Amino acid sequence: MTSRQPVKVGICGLGTVGSGVFRLLRQNKSTITTRLGRPIEIVCLGMRSPKPHLDTGSIRVCQDIMDVARDPAVDILVETIGGEKVARMLALEAMAQGKHIVTANKALIAIHGQELFTFAEQHGIKLHFEASVAGGIPIIKVMREGLIANQISLLRGIVNGTTNYVLSAMADEGRDFQEVLLEAQELGYAEKDPSLDIEGIDSAHKLAILATLAFDIPLCFDQIYKEGIAQISQQDMLNAEQLGLHIKHIAIARAQEAGYELRVHPALLPKRNLLTHVKNVLNAIEVQGDAVDRTFYSGAGAGADATASAIIADIADIIGCTADKTSGYISRLAQQNRATASAPVLPMANIVNKHYVRLNARNEPGVFEQLTQIFKVENINIETLIQDAHQNAKPIGPDQIPTFILTYKVKEAAITNALKAIRNLKNIYSDVQHIRVEDS
Amino acid sequence: MTSRQPVKVGICGLGTVGSGVFRLLRQNKSTITTRLGRPIEIVCLGMRSPKPHLDTGSIRVCQDIMDVARDPAVDILVETIGGEKVARMLALEAMAQGKHIVTANKALIAIHGQELFTFAEQHGIKLHFEASVAGGIPIIKVMREGLIANQISLLRGIVNGTTNYVLSAMADEGRDFQEVLLEAQELGYAEKDPSLDIEGIDSAHKLAILATLAFDIPLCFDQIYKEGIAQISQQDMLNAEQLGLHIKHIAIARAQEAGYELRVHPALLPKRNLLTHVKNVLNAIEVQGDAVDRTFYSGAGAGADATASAIIADIADIIGCTADKTSGYISRLAQQNRATASAPVLPMANIVNKHYVRLNARNEPGVFEQLTQIFKVENINIETLIQDAHQNAKPIGPDQIPTFILTYKVKEAAITNALKAIRNLKNIYSDVQHIRVEDS
Repeated sequence: MTSRQPVKVGICGLGTVGSGVFRLLRQNKSTITTRLGRPIEIVCLGMRSPKPHLDTGSIRVCQDIMDVARDPAVDILVETIGGEKVARMLALEAMAQGKHIVTANKALIAIHGQELFTFAEQHGIKLHFEASVAGGIPIIKVMREGLIANQISLLRGIVNGTTNYVLSAMADEGRDFQEVLLEAQELGYAEKDPSLDIEGIDSAHKLAILATLAFDIPLCFDQIYKEGIAQISQQDMLNAEQLGLHIKHIAIARAQEAGYELRVHPALLPKRNLLTHVKNVLNAIEVQGDAVDRTFYSGAGAGADATASAIIADIADIIGCTADKTSGYISRLAQQNRATASAPVLPMANIVNKHYVRLNARNEPGVFEQLTQIFKVENINIETLIQDAHQNAKPIGPDQIPTFILTYKVKEAAITNALKAIRNLKNIYSDVQHIRVEDS
Repeated sequence: MTSRQPVKVGICGLGTVGSGVFRLLRQNKSTITTRLGRPIEIVCLGMRSPKPHLDTGSIRVCQDIMDVARDPAVDILVETIGGEKVARMLALEAMAQGKHIVTANKALIAIHGQELFTFAEQHGIKLHFEASVAGGIPIIKVMREGLIANQISLLRGIVNGTTNYVLSAMADEGRDFQEVLLEAQELGYAEKDPSLDIEGIDSAHKLAILATLAFDIPLCFDQIYKEGIAQISQQDMLNAEQLGLHIKHIAIARAQEAGYELRVHPALLPKRNLLTHVKNVLNAIEVQGDAVDRTFYSGAGAGADATASAIIADIADIIGCTADKTSGYISRLAQQNRATASAPVLPMANIVNKHYVRLNARNEPGVFEQLTQIFKVENINIETLIQDAHQNAKPIGPDQIPTFILTYKVKEAAITNALKAIRNLKNIYSDVQHIRVEDS
């Protein structure tokens, strides 16, 4: 695995996640190669079906995943088969063969982590599992590296998309648990047997992994208190609303002097907590460190692409360690900054936005006709126009009408022209205000 | 700089940030040493005053910061003097002397990045700048490593604490710009000359750095559109509220087919955008990648400790690259998991929370006396008790009163006992609901 040579990857399991890795490596091949300084090449695939549903070209396809673990061409084995027993055997075999491991498998790490870490250490193997917690959010890297200088006192998050989807729909649509769960199953957000998610086991797997990173303690999945969401009723949602609180299913790790709180259960949260704004299948985690204080991370917790993003980041980490990641990174920054062409930054005149314009018009006939004429000339559609002499606005002069306008999307050039024309109108006071709207 | 040996650091500038690094390295010495596998030792300090305000012990103190750059004992120079001219000279000299650089200086990177990256590349030097953007949020690491597999399409954030503080106070307290700015200056949130912050220059420095990482383009500070917040009035705040929008000062980088949008200005954001919930001096950034979709990061954007956290993470990155970070990380995980004692996980009975209890009582005399008696026995204070036969609750049986109770904080053991006693009451229907409250 010398630098600049392709790094050779074998993927075991071509389900949602494995296929996602396959696709994303193709889709962003040139970006990834540039950023890593070398290409990632898939050399072997392990899957039960003899007929891959993807165009695998000349890539070796094995029906026995153990053949991937033993393929001498493979540098890094990506495990996406799920479950914990076979995955454990696969990881041990691959490591015994000197291959580094990237896994998305939280149960594997939470339950067999102790054995796997020790085996990896003994064999000089790298074992990465960013994708095992909160999908596309690089929370493992944040804990492991970004917050390395901190004593972590609290880690609290929504780490299961299924339960968050169900509770969000119950809260926002007034529907019952069973009905929403059925829908989630139809949409593929919940498994046929949803118990791992609904009962908090999946969240506890993830909490065990996060806690070992946060507190430098052994994995302790069995010691985590677990409670699911099946008993939450519509009545509780209404009561929570009345109290100004939101019901979320959360995983909590808190350091106390006497020991650690580790628990997964529904909880009522105040609206000022950002977690209450995390809806549907999204995940989010708050982390409190003694130096950084409270930090917050949110994004997609699952899905083929988000998980693949995390897996490829792990591959990059493994490569980086042998090829001197940071020097490579500085070289890349140096090269892109030596580019003779400057970056193609778009002129502000071409930027498209909605716009807010506030002005004070003299209370005289014809003023609004002039205003709307200006907008018409510039082809600017008005979404909202509020003019109200009696509203809460403080008039800045006599006989004037505080007015504000919200436009539909237009190019900056149009609004610039319109503002210039408005400022030239005799019947408009001078302080015409303009603020762009970002609603995407 | 061989592994296990202390890594030797020189700090230039002992103001807020430099002192923060000094203190945090002492405060979390044992945690940091364990996690890195080697200690970080401060061997040299550069500061103008001959009398340090910290207990520097036997550490060499230089009044000429160039002496730190030339000190042969220094492996890594931490630059916290700020400004860009002297900082540039210092960084170039230190790199020429073979020292790696960690800086919190956004102006230095945004303006002189091209020269510095190239010099670093030529001399095989590592140059890290996590602390230059959004303080304690490891956003540079997220962009550089965590999202490495993604084409970034949008990056949008609140990256200046001063402007966010001013706009938050204007929106939430109905106060005027000048008044809040004066207060921010008194509190130390704004500089005596606040123009760098208020006019968007500081945000543009940070946006230039983020954009170079997001889009693999050269730094282009000069091409960024910049607009400040001085013209925002209380009337705009009221109008925004009426539209269901919030005014925030944001930095935006968006990729279009034709080129890049790079702009810093006030903007109206819908309340569903998490950025609108980021108040006071906090920072936050949303990043959209083609694989991960929308992700979001928030936390302290400045301050001694948060910035020190980022600087130490950079030092860890630099060390990791020579000592094989990931193997060290796996060894640590292996070791902590081989610990004979399991983690001291607290029993659930000892966990303290507020609690929500919902029940249906028969509409008979004496029921509530029995209930409140149970709470009294367990020493549980009731914060809220709502019982209302006419409320929106659906009764589950005849002659019953839907009731819910919110307690003050008690140990789980007390609420467990109370729930058991309540469930044994004859006049309470069977489905007694219990949810914990997380309000910290």
